[in-house]
Amino acid sequence: MTLPALSDIYNATRTQSLQHALDHKTKPLGSLGRIEALALQIGQILDSNAPELHAPQMVVFAADHGLAARGVSAYPSDVTWQMVENFLAGGAAVSVLSRQHGIALTVVDCGVRHNFLAGLPPGAQRAGLQVRKVGGAEQGAADSTLAPAMDAAQCAAAMAQGQALVAALPGNALLLGEMGIGNTSAAALLLSRLSGLDISLCTGAGTGLDAHAVQHKIAVLRTVLTRHLDAQTPLQALAAMGGFEIATMVGAVLQAAHERRVVVVDGFIASAAVLVSHALQPLVLQRCVFAHRSGERGHEAMLQYLGVQPLLDLGLRLGEGSGAALAWPLLQSACALLREMASFSSAGVATKRADAQPQSTDPHAAPQPAT
Amino acid sequence: MTLPALSDIYNATRTQSLQHALDHKTKPLGSLGRIEALALQIGQILDSNAPELHAPQMVVFAADHGLAARGVSAYPSDVTWQMVENFLAGGAAVSVLSRQHGIALTVVDCGVRHNFLAGLPPGAQRAGLQVRKVGGAEQGAADSTLAPAMDAAQCAAAMAQGQALVAALPGNALLLGEMGIGNTSAAALLLSRLSGLDISLCTGAGTGLDAHAVQHKIAVLRTVLTRHLDAQTPLQALAAMGGFEIATMVGAVLQAAHERRVVVVDGFIASAAVLVSHALQPLVLQRCVFAHRSGERGHEAMLQYLGVQPLLDLGLRLGEGSGAALAWPLLQSACALLREMASFSSAGVATKRADAQPQSTDPHAAPQPAT
Repeated sequence: MTLPALSDIYNATRTQSLQHALDHKTKPLGSLGRIEALALQIGQILDSNAPELHAPQMVVFAADHGLAARGVSAYPSDVTWQMVENFLAGGAAVSVLSRQHGIALTVVDCGVRHNFLAGLPPGAQRAGLQVRKVGGAEQGAADSTLAPAMDAAQCAAAMAQGQALVAALPGNALLLGEMGIGNTSAAALLLSRLSGLDISLCTGAGTGLDAHAVQHKIAVLRTVLTRHLDAQTPLQALAAMGGFEIATMVGAVLQAAHERRVVVVDGFIASAAVLVSHALQPLVLQRCVFAHRSGERGHEAMLQYLGVQPLLDLGLRLGEGSGAALAWPLLQSACALLREMASFSSAGVATKRADAQPQSTDPHAAPQPAT
Repeated sequence: MTLPALSDIYNATRTQSLQHALDHKTKPLGSLGRIEALALQIGQILDSNAPELHAPQMVVFAADHGLAARGVSAYPSDVTWQMVENFLAGGAAVSVLSRQHGIALTVVDCGVRHNFLAGLPPGAQRAGLQVRKVGGAEQGAADSTLAPAMDAAQCAAAMAQGQALVAALPGNALLLGEMGIGNTSAAALLLSRLSGLDISLCTGAGTGLDAHAVQHKIAVLRTVLTRHLDAQTPLQALAAMGGFEIATMVGAVLQAAHERRVVVVDGFIASAAVLVSHALQPLVLQRCVFAHRSGERGHEAMLQYLGVQPLLDLGLRLGEGSGAALAWPLLQSACALLREMASFSSAGVATKRADAQPQSTDPHAAPQPAT
């Protein structure tokens, strides 16, 4: 398959001009901390000193995992489709948060074991839902303890549909969400294979396994890695041990990066899709804002492996895109500050004292002139 | 002076009912991390399982400090009034962020060395500004190397006007902002005196001193502490080493806490006002949400002394209330999630598997029924 081409968005002129703008805003140098780095990044992605985010799109990629039958999740697979219905009804965390921030929410059924269109006339659609099943009807990814999660053709089809669906969305920002009972396992497997970290360092409690069950999960995942020892390239690993929603997300990330959209990465599973995308096209990372450090074990290792720092650290471990939505206002703030803050000269504010280095260390000396 | 009475807002019935609501939302138990703790706190403050924040008020308390003449700040005192003009003109960070989030912004001149009403007819006012000077016209707090920053009567007057101005504001949330060249020194002095920590552990670069200048600042502050060794109670320390804006903020915090408003605490200086308020009325902390961990040295020690955890950690060190405004959407999210998220039963989502503890650790055993 052909991957979308990515140009290096780093532009010395733009970067200097953004840094100059930030440094001359009415605030001490660098005093907005990480928000300034964020403003610089978004300004580079959108190639503007007055960046404006518009029509943000939250896409929740949903699919089931055969692996879920192996006791790797605290919840049954049926929760995947039930939560998709909850997203569509507006009652899930990502629904509430997207509504709060005016983010359009689309759920993509990449392979949920459920027919969301049952009982509807042929050709009928449901608002907010795109049915793009990669496998057969009501079929999730295969149990990777027994077989590859998907074959190479399915993986390519998933990525292609991910590209196509982003290409059809408006706006200049993509927020990554996901739903799929069993998908922390798939993400842990991809992290272990691509980074070389032992699976025990990549595996966490997911939706709420106890310590004993986490040990079981690690044992299961170790057998999966052994079974798919031949799947060493990013695409091979994605097909063998990923999932339909993750493969579709990889395509979506590559397309969004190609179009220079700002990509807001949620937690462990969304980061796993970025991990694969990055292995295919390293420049992807230039376009990615990592929303938060998840409470899920393995996410910190993944962020370190990618060499990135997230915005929030709130112990979130829900997924769905909830962390991306919670962080979204910080991106808007970064842009608003660039666009709307006054400069020292425009506001008539004095800059740093030339004599900030004090002449006298005797506090009882006569007061220094205030420049 | 009489302090506003504070009741213990902890209510076992309300707390249990909030926790029950959170635990039955469609998400794994505790998976929204710190946002759940925040929802619980706001629900307790507003005594509601469906809390709604309305008419949030950002108040920027501004004043000058005689101590600024001692070379403890990288910027001249004139920046205080110039930044107040910038707040009023809408070009400062706190102006931009308040506008972004629909937060009403009021600047209170508690003692800036400037006449903001010069040239206006007698009795005229300026939109967004309250002139409530504690000292004389165009007079800041006294240089605490030479004298108490203010006398006891001025301190009481500042606190009383802080109470009065909050009492007159609408809404149920107060965001604390401040402006005053020299006020990281006042905050460091209050932290050192009230906590017993050495001043070197409480003192940072403020608006941008270099390492040498920080050493000078510490030396100056050490002489202030020695000069005011008799100022040991919270009120004595506040008068001797605080500032007009900090004393007014203490009154505002106490009043907001009395009225059970949600108090959103910005950085080092706002936290110092809470430190004093807490020393006077420990129950204040129940009503406080700490917005962020500042990059200013001393703030982490202050947060630890108070035993609180902030929401954001973005290396901010601007003040003005900018961190409080950046964190504000997280409070709104916490409330929205409580109000709008579906429960497992209302959404028809299955709960945790009874067999989440797997029977078999052999991944090649027959798949377990998905409950």
